[in-house]
Amino acid sequence: MPPGPRGESPTRTTSASTGGRLPDPLTSTLVSAQPSSIVEQCRRAKAAARKLAPMPRAARDAALRGIAAGLRQRAEALLEANAEDVAAGRARGTNEALLDRLVLNPKRVEEMAHAVEEIAGQDDPLGHVLSEWTRPDGLRIRRVAVPIGVIAMIYEARPNVTADASALCLKAGNAVVLRGGSEAARSNFTILGVVHDALTKAGLPRDAVQMLPPGDRAAIAELLHQTDTVDLAIPRGGDALLRYVRENARVPVIAHAAGVCHLFVDAGADVEMATRIAVNAKLQRPGTCNAIECLLVDAGDASRLLPPIAAALLEGGCELRGDERTRALVARAIPATDDDWGHEYVDRILAVRVVDGIDGALDHIARYGSGHTEAICTRNPAHAERWRHEVDAACVVVNASTRLHDGGQVGMGAEIGTATSKLHWRGTMGAQGLTTFQWVLDGDGQLRT
Amino acid sequence: MPPGPRGESPTRTTSASTGGRLPDPLTSTLVSAQPSSIVEQCRRAKAAARKLAPMPRAARDAALRGIAAGLRQRAEALLEANAEDVAAGRARGTNEALLDRLVLNPKRVEEMAHAVEEIAGQDDPLGHVLSEWTRPDGLRIRRVAVPIGVIAMIYEARPNVTADASALCLKAGNAVVLRGGSEAARSNFTILGVVHDALTKAGLPRDAVQMLPPGDRAAIAELLHQTDTVDLAIPRGGDALLRYVRENARVPVIAHAAGVCHLFVDAGADVEMATRIAVNAKLQRPGTCNAIECLLVDAGDASRLLPPIAAALLEGGCELRGDERTRALVARAIPATDDDWGHEYVDRILAVRVVDGIDGALDHIARYGSGHTEAICTRNPAHAERWRHEVDAACVVVNASTRLHDGGQVGMGAEIGTATSKLHWRGTMGAQGLTTFQWVLDGDGQLRT
Repeated sequence: MPPGPRGESPTRTTSASTGGRLPDPLTSTLVSAQPSSIVEQCRRAKAAARKLAPMPRAARDAALRGIAAGLRQRAEALLEANAEDVAAGRARGTNEALLDRLVLNPKRVEEMAHAVEEIAGQDDPLGHVLSEWTRPDGLRIRRVAVPIGVIAMIYEARPNVTADASALCLKAGNAVVLRGGSEAARSNFTILGVVHDALTKAGLPRDAVQMLPPGDRAAIAELLHQTDTVDLAIPRGGDALLRYVRENARVPVIAHAAGVCHLFVDAGADVEMATRIAVNAKLQRPGTCNAIECLLVDAGDASRLLPPIAAALLEGGCELRGDERTRALVARAIPATDDDWGHEYVDRILAVRVVDGIDGALDHIARYGSGHTEAICTRNPAHAERWRHEVDAACVVVNASTRLHDGGQVGMGAEIGTATSKLHWRGTMGAQGLTTFQWVLDGDGQLRT
Repeated sequence: MPPGPRGESPTRTTSASTGGRLPDPLTSTLVSAQPSSIVEQCRRAKAAARKLAPMPRAARDAALRGIAAGLRQRAEALLEANAEDVAAGRARGTNEALLDRLVLNPKRVEEMAHAVEEIAGQDDPLGHVLSEWTRPDGLRIRRVAVPIGVIAMIYEARPNVTADASALCLKAGNAVVLRGGSEAARSNFTILGVVHDALTKAGLPRDAVQMLPPGDRAAIAELLHQTDTVDLAIPRGGDALLRYVRENARVPVIAHAAGVCHLFVDAGADVEMATRIAVNAKLQRPGTCNAIECLLVDAGDASRLLPPIAAALLEGGCELRGDERTRALVARAIPATDDDWGHEYVDRILAVRVVDGIDGALDHIARYGSGHTEAICTRNPAHAERWRHEVDAACVVVNASTRLHDGGQVGMGAEIGTATSKLHWRGTMGAQGLTTFQWVLDGDGQLRT
């Protein structure tokens, strides 16, 4: 696709500035984006993806380092744009929890830049030979990691997703069409300007990162129907957004859905370890998807295990909602109802249930788990092995906190989310999850006989 | 799920027979399946998948060997059921091409049994550690291959898919819900009886293989909406079926769509090799998805290359449809129209176009290719390397026939199809493509700090 007026960035003319006030990025981008339909933006992304695929690692990483540098250089302008988003949100009566996710400060901007830099430093996810062999006739067979193509990223308030998703998609050689929440539009388009300048400086096609203008959900549906150009959609957000995407998508979707995580404390477990894990998994940061929502304890050992674990949780300010057998051992637990099983509180609340052995725990999780992260605390190697083989979740954990299932904690770096669907990639997902593979057959004239 | 009358196989009572006449499998299954809705069959499959996941390789392979043995033992009954399907099809005026795909004979039954046996002999696709490392705090991180869960297989006339799909899904520890074409219903339900008996004898849950009663497409839509129980749908069939599945699916889909494959003959190519590859790729079996539909030749060398290649193709009974530059060199080529580019003939017809170098070929394929298999014949290593990096297709081939992109030819054994979508698995797909992975975190009390 030839470069043209529609390919220009609204912030291009200020690319050399070091923090000066930008023209309002939202208004100017909307003007420049006007003639460009969603279909056209996706087509441009696809054309850019074709150019991007054979680019060497050095060029992709240079673009990422340019994004990090640009975020630091233009931090002041970004904070101003963000302040306008926050003020507009407050004027609309947006709730404080959402405003908290929206707001940027110098520390958060630096974290954003640092995360992008870290992605630049990671191993190249492309070009790996996943498997390789040679046929008796000399034909060489390889499966080689390649980019997916065009990713549609649909997300809500957090502006850092704009930088993270751009960086992870580019790292894996993909183009990306971003559709962030309208409440963060000024922040997002300012970050987009930084990304576009970094792409240009690194010699990569700026069309590789597209952003849809903020608007209603019908635009998301249109994006999700672009089967000719969009290879994968990744929604990140609340249940309503995920349901909407699932119901409207014609392109493949990797969902990053709720985490209803459990910790099962087995008979004979080390009560101190179990207590530390339970407190960490629930209270270290209760608002995250890998925090536990339900504690299961083996009935055969509950009288020894449950009281001290419950005391530590209550001490930490956690509300406990227990079944009858729990309440017989923990007076301060309030009665659980059926709605408490499988419930995602994302708060300092924990459902507690006494179950009949590991089978009871496995049955409970098969019924109520969300396929995210499921932990056992046990001294029984056979039970640990059953846990690894019989729990169907993106991540199974033996004798550690569920909070460790996270890109940074496992040592993989920034993540685009935690996939709770089973296809293509599962669990914490970084640049490697944004690749696919291609068969490569090399011969010297081999035929089928 | 407790075993009950609905879990009984319609052919159970004849399991000891060695080829005797069975009760009409279609009628008896329909009766026994009557109280069981699609939702209920999918639930049973999911419950079976949970039991199947931890089963050792030996049990799964024993079931597969039992299927192979059962197919041989009951070949006579299967051929009778198939003859009824064929007769009914003929009475309905079914076209001969479809009848040919439907019809079984002793050789085809033996091939079916042999294919299942080969799958049993393949490496276990489960349990492989895809990656593994240990964190500074001692936490051990692994990604381990595990079954996907429940696969919905939607296909048309060929009864061998019933055996192949059952075997490949079971090999990878999955349950499967089969929905074959109604024209093959008697054959399919007879094979199902064989599969169920083999499952029972091997100690595997017979609910692991479900078959929907034949019916209208609305049943397919219902199956494609079972997001609580079905993890993946795989359609195999014509364009209309694939489009229907894509438009109606709420579960993830791996499509096995059209193959519009190209061969590009580069300037300087070995004309004899190019001729052999072109003839093999087009004429060895023109009705397959990995046969070429279009030949591209570099304008810079077309006068040397094209006449002998075209002569060999014409000699082999192939119709050539050429652009102007082709027809200037090949008098017997008829004029191509725009409809010929990107067209899947599945016949002894080939579109031929003279293009401007490798860039012209890459542009043509980016526009008209279907992402299946794309080959180059070249002596230029730089062009071979560009081909490997710049062609976006499930399989790229250098100096060999596109017909080699096939499970058996690459040495992978039976295939469930050739995936033309990009997510999860690409190209020829066997049992390994029917697995996913799980993160396994092993610790001794690690917490998040």
